[in-house]
Amino acid sequence: MLKALDSARKSGDDIPVGAVIVKDGKVIAQAHNEKEARNDVSAHAEILAIRKAEEITGNWRLNGCEMYVTLEPCPMCMWAILQSRIDRLFFGSYDTVYGALSVLPEMITMSNSKLYHKGGIMEQECDSILNEYFNKMRAR
Amino acid sequence: MLKALDSARKSGDDIPVGAVIVKDGKVIAQAHNEKEARNDVSAHAEILAIRKAEEITGNWRLNGCEMYVTLEPCPMCMWAILQSRIDRLFFGSYDTVYGALSVLPEMITMSNSKLYHKGGIMEQECDSILNEYFNKMRAR
Repeated sequence: MLKALDSARKSGDDIPVGAVIVKDGKVIAQAHNEKEARNDVSAHAEILAIRKAEEITGNWRLNGCEMYVTLEPCPMCMWAILQSRIDRLFFGSYDTVYGALSVLPEMITMSNSKLYHKGGIMEQECDSILNEYFNKMRAR
Repeated sequence: MLKALDSARKSGDDIPVGAVIVKDGKVIAQAHNEKEARNDVSAHAEILAIRKAEEITGNWRLNGCEMYVTLEPCPMCMWAILQSRIDRLFFGSYDTVYGALSVLPEMITMSNSKLYHKGGIMEQECDSILNEYFNKMRAR
């Protein structure tokens, strides 16, 4: 999660979110939110990390992989995570408005996935990066 | 929808789905499913068409645009459509297992979107492309 936080800090004008994919104890992909930077609604940290990992492994199936992400995934990213067959998902901050696990938990059963997921990992650190960003935006 | 069907037919070994984005009566982006071809779970027709349209317009906001897609979008694509602020969504075949509108209609209210959506457009033609593909797969 420390590496995901490092990535989140690189998000620039985008909402700071970082994601890391780990396989066999090694980081194989790392990304941060680039929606504004790329003018691409699909360029969330999770999707970019999944695309990198799939390019590196040459396979869209990421069985045996874990994702660490600083914020609870939105429904778009959640469905990509489920489709990619990532085994375990760890996230930091909860998103009770747009978070797929908080708002649409039925996505898991709908996908027939056995994804293990756990939120609140280094929650305070993940929350504070987001709070800093939104405070800065409000002060503009 | 005829153009979306044309795109769907180019999907090769991928499940045949085609998507088209129209602005001011002109097609600005067209794509087909390339999940297998690109080894990328995010490479659904809708996401690829959205990324193209956003690249062309230089803006992730696709207000004033319509999407035509041959199959009801999955939750990943649906959230991308909602995020992109596309105004109107027309789809052909219904997907009562993985279709976001059929299974997770609360995604629309959750997103605060006013998206207009209508399914069953040229449904028979859209269904038959999918049926042909799955019959061919079963015969392998």
